[in-house]
This record gives sequence, C-alpha cells and structure tokens, in this order.
Amino acid sequence: MSLFPGQPPTIGLAPDGWSVNILDQTALPHRVVIRTVQSAADMAEAIRHMRVRGAPLIGAAAAYGVALAMRDDASDAGLDAAVVLLRSTRPTAVNLAAALARVTAVIGPLAPPGRAAAAYSVAAAVCEEDVALNHAIGAHGLALMRRWADSGRPVRVLTHCNAGYLATVDGGTALAPVYRAHADGLPVHVWVSETRPRGQGALTAWELERAGVPFTVIADNAAGHVMQAGRVDACLVGTDRTTASGDVCNKVGTYLKALAAREHGIPFYACVPGPSIDWSVDAGSEIPIEERDGEELRVVPADAEGARPVRLLHAATPVANPAFDVTPAELVTGLITERGVCAASAAGLRSLYPERARPATATS
Amino acid sequence: MSLFPGQPPTIGLAPDGWSVNILDQTALPHRVVIRTVQSAADMAEAIRHMRVRGAPLIGAAAAYGVALAMRDDASDAGLDAAVVLLRSTRPTAVNLAAALARVTAVIGPLAPPGRAAAAYSVAAAVCEEDVALNHAIGAHGLALMRRWADSGRPVRVLTHCNAGYLATVDGGTALAPVYRAHADGLPVHVWVSETRPRGQGALTAWELERAGVPFTVIADNAAGHVMQAGRVDACLVGTDRTTASGDVCNKVGTYLKALAAREHGIPFYACVPGPSIDWSVDAGSEIPIEERDGEELRVVPADAEGARPVRLLHAATPVANPAFDVTPAELVTGLITERGVCAASAAGLRSLYPERARPATATS
Repeated sequence: MSLFPGQPPTIGLAPDGWSVNILDQTALPHRVVIRTVQSAADMAEAIRHMRVRGAPLIGAAAAYGVALAMRDDASDAGLDAAVVLLRSTRPTAVNLAAALARVTAVIGPLAPPGRAAAAYSVAAAVCEEDVALNHAIGAHGLALMRRWADSGRPVRVLTHCNAGYLATVDGGTALAPVYRAHADGLPVHVWVSETRPRGQGALTAWELERAGVPFTVIADNAAGHVMQAGRVDACLVGTDRTTASGDVCNKVGTYLKALAAREHGIPFYACVPGPSIDWSVDAGSEIPIEERDGEELRVVPADAEGARPVRLLHAATPVANPAFDVTPAELVTGLITERGVCAASAAGLRSLYPERARPATATS
Repeated sequence: MSLFPGQPPTIGLAPDGWSVNILDQTALPHRVVIRTVQSAADMAEAIRHMRVRGAPLIGAAAAYGVALAMRDDASDAGLDAAVVLLRSTRPTAVNLAAALARVTAVIGPLAPPGRAAAAYSVAAAVCEEDVALNHAIGAHGLALMRRWADSGRPVRVLTHCNAGYLATVDGGTALAPVYRAHADGLPVHVWVSETRPRGQGALTAWELERAGVPFTVIADNAAGHVMQAGRVDACLVGTDRTTASGDVCNKVGTYLKALAAREHGIPFYACVPGPSIDWSVDAGSEIPIEERDGEELRVVPADAEGARPVRLLHAATPVANPAFDVTPAELVTGLITERGVCAASAAGLRSLYPERARPATATS
C-alpha cells in the first residue's frame, strides 16, 4: 500500500539482504536520508534518538535489532543483552516490548545457529502485519469519515503528533482513515498540531503534502481555539499504549485536545492496532511515562542548511519533558482497531478481542 | 517597585527627556538590548514586532507613541494619523485602544503647541497607574497564595505566556502575586508554559530566574499531564481583554489550560487590571483575535550567537496562527483585579466596579 509515488519506506532490508535501511526522521522534513543499520547497538541508538519513531515502527525496528544482534552473537547471553539494550531505549510504547517478547519466544528455543534467520522472519512478519492492521484501520475509519462528511465541505480532522505512515511500516494509524478517504474522493482537511517539543507535526505535514491531502499546521496552543470556533469535525490520534480498560496513552498534549473535544462535542477517536493494546494494564496511570532530555525543549536542532542549532533556553534552565500523557477512556469516543470500532472500555475491547478477555473476578 | 537589582525597565524616557527607551524583548532571553524610539512609526514597529508586548505595556507604549508623533506634527491630521497607525498594530489587547482613546481625549481639545507635553504627561500617568494596579493585584493575589499554601510545600502555580514584569511597566499581572509571595517568604514554584509560537515562556523563565523564584519550563503540551499528576495548586494568567461578563481573552493556549484546570479542580484565576476590562463587550466571541504571520510558526529566530534562524516548515506550508483565545467565564474561578478578587461574571465585575454598571435592560 504505497501512498504516493517515490514514498521512501520507513524501514526495510537493504539490498545486501541483511542490513536494515531506515528513513532517518530526524532529517525530515528537510532531507530524505536513508541510514543503513548493521548492529543492535545502532538500532538502539536510532530508536532512542527517534530516527525511527512511532509505536508500530519502533516495534518493527526492535525486532530487526534482535536479528542484527543474532548475526553478531547468537548465544543466550547475546540474545539477552540485545533484548535488554533494545528494551531500554523507550519505555512507553508497548509495541516495542511486545515485539521483543515475540521474537524472543520464537528464537529463544532454537539452537543459536538458527536464531538470526528466524529473527529476520519474525521481523518481516511484524512489518507485514503492521501494514495489514493499518489497512484495516483505514477501512473501518472510512465509515466514520463518511458519517462526519457534510455535503460540499471537507471532513475536518484534527490530529496530534505523527501517526501517519512515518510512524508505521506503512499506511499510518490515525492517518489511515484520512488517506483512505482521500483515495476514495472524500474531501478531507487535516489540522496538524505542531507537537512540541519534537515537532512531529512537521512530519505529518511532510507526508500529507506529498500525498496531496490538504492540511493546516497550528501551534499546539491553538487546538482549543479552532475547536471552539467550530472548525473541527473529529479528532483522530494514534496511541503508544492503550490499556485493557481503554485509557489511551499517546504523545504528550493529546489529553488537552481530548478535553477540548469533549467540551465541544467533537468525536475523539484513537486509532489502535492490536499490538498497541496492553492487556496487562487497566489504569492508564500505571503506564511508565518517558521523561526525555530537557535539551529537546531548550534547543531547536539545525535545519537542512546544516547551520548550528538555535538555543531557546540556556542549558541550566530547569525543564520537565514528559513525552506522553494519558487520556482517560471516558474522554475517548471510540477506538478504531483492525477488527472494527469499539467503545473505549473494557467491555468494548472485549467485544472485539474475546480471546483476550480475562475471567471475570468473583464478587468479593 | 523593583523586583531585583539591575532589572532593566521595560519602557521609560531616555536621558534626553523625550526619546523613549524600550527593552527589546525579541532579544531576550539571550541579550539585554535597550532601543531608543524617536517616532510614532518606530513605536508602531516595536509593538507590531513585539519588541514591546503584553497588554499593559503596549498601552503605555502606544501613549508614548502619540507623544512622539506630536513632536513631529501636532496638527489634527497628525494626531489622527498617529492614532490610526498605532491602533493598527495589534487588535486584541484592549489596553492599546483604551490608552489611545485616553490620550486623544486629553490632547484633542488642546491647541497643537500644547499637545506633545500633554501627551507625555498622559503617557507617564498610564505608566504610573500600571505599576500601582499591579502592586494592588499582587496584594490581593497574595491572600489567595496563602490559602493555597500547604505546610512545608511551595505553592505550585502554573502560568502561560508572560504576564510578568516584562508584560507591564513594572510588577507584572499574573506574576505579581508570585513575586509578592516570594518577597514575603512564602515558598513558590512556577510551571512555565513555553507558549509557542513566540515562546514567551522563555521571557517568564528569564525574569523568574533573575528574581530568584524557582520554576520549571514545560512544553505547552505538558500542562494537562502535570495537572493530572496532581502537581499544580493553581493557575494564574494575565489577560489581553476581559469582557464585562468575565470572559477572558488571553494568549492562545490559555483556554486548553483552563479546561484541564476545571477537570482537576484546580483554581484558575486571571489577573485583570482595570484597563484590560472591555466594558463594551459581553461575549468573548466578539473580541477580534489577531492572526499573526505564519512565519512565526515556520521559523525559529536566531539566538544570541547571531546565527541564522532555523526553518521548521518550508515557506509555503499552510499555517494558521491565531495569537489569542477566549476562556469562557464559567471556566474561570475568579478575577484578581486591583480592587480585589471577584467572580468571573457580570455581577462579580459590577460589585468591584459599580460605576461601570450599565442600567439593567428592561424585561421584554
């Protein structure tokens, strides 16, 4: 499912058949830079520094990271070290830990000589499945998009961060319904929230522009104003981890948008591929929230011209930089999953994933 | 009321007795640059480009702008032209139009030769009154600060934009209670919202640091998260225009913070000097919201090193850049004015400003 001609893949095997090529998202929107990653350490660096980012994509990247590690040292110790290293990169998105658990479950029982090839197979499967999940999310979301369509006016979607193709292997999560609608001739306009401090709104703008989808970038601060002004039909966001009870952890700032959406009666949907659901957690407050380096807030990186970065705040300025927040289920109109749309609740999720239902606890 | 030793004044007469010295806030927090303004055109430029900013301060600046104009051309045509020019700079803060109306009311009836001196007198009065208003706001706010104080823990105030001394002639509005508490030995900690796109949070950080008040800068996106985490005792913001019914227009993003504050039962107060009240408007939706140049969102200006700016988005990227939003009165716990604290409502404001009460309309 290629969105537009010349779309650079976010991740994939290099022509040598074993190195992993990644689109370095820290160079976007200015330059398209493909990096060739050849070790687990380099993959961990790429995840940690957000060269690859987005919950689904870092799951795939971590799986490939294990495969690369197994080429270097396929012993049990080598496997353990790779998993520990890769798991330490980013704590919030459940996809990363889930992908590591999956590849370990497959290759752990194998004799070391077979582990690398098996890990590559698992990584390829994670990638293929991600594309299929996102395709299904697009189809289910399209039905909602048609419901929001008003005659003669584009459906005006507000999104936060980047949950587009760049956050995935392909297709996007929150943008999957948008791309699907656009392809089907349904007019769409996207409000793109800048998403400080890392500015993933620029990534969203970059891919929407290349795909030909109309959009407008706004400061994160302006989201309430445009909703109050009646200029938003729906909010669509991704998720880094959604709990079994429907609490949605996503890029910091999502929660403020959900509060404004409720205030103005605007549908607020999270697009949730199955691997982003953490069935082991009920309350969003239990999710570890990554605290990133304060320099992300103090310094704006150089752009394409290669000049030096611009410092906004001196290095000793006290800063807090939580990377995610939790939107409680009661603020979420619904979850768009690959299996359909459900209420953001334990019952809603159970209705779509009955095999994950935990036995009801006895009344005490 | 000097906050700290060596505090550069935001505005004041130059030693020559007629030029106006302004602290160029576009050079902060990197450098302290004093500019000497000698014409209404230069003052209009300084206001438009936010070299001086903050509702109270641009009122004072506009009054001085008329005085400078009267030195060049004190005719009726000269006065009209100056007022039109200065009024066109920024539409939202009512202080600016109010200061222009005030100086015009005084000097309009005078013969041209007396106009310049009279305009300087009005400008000086606007400045003196601003300092007194802010001092009173600090005193009334202090009582609230004491109420929020928990034994052994600093009062944790969240603010947005800069409503400190830099936004005023001196003393600040939203930060007046903070400075007053700090001076009185009540421990305070301030959450400073970055305030994209112009980054006035860096101004707030700059002045809090110089005054010795502890603070932490956060991305605008993180405000909901810190409130949800129980780390905020109260929100204090300024205002560019508050309506007769208590709707608070302030820097864009204020509204999102007010929604989060209500959600978490956190007191949300606007600090409102009398000149920021627009008695002619009831509904906040009637306030003109300034739409500023999209380049503010696309480009980050150079810092102290004088390097070139960093481009975040290419110049043709569609952008919307509303500079303000309206927080409806029902989200505002109260208004801290120079006359005391009142409910954010027509009745509340009438109780403090009975002379501004309009006759009740007859029931139809």
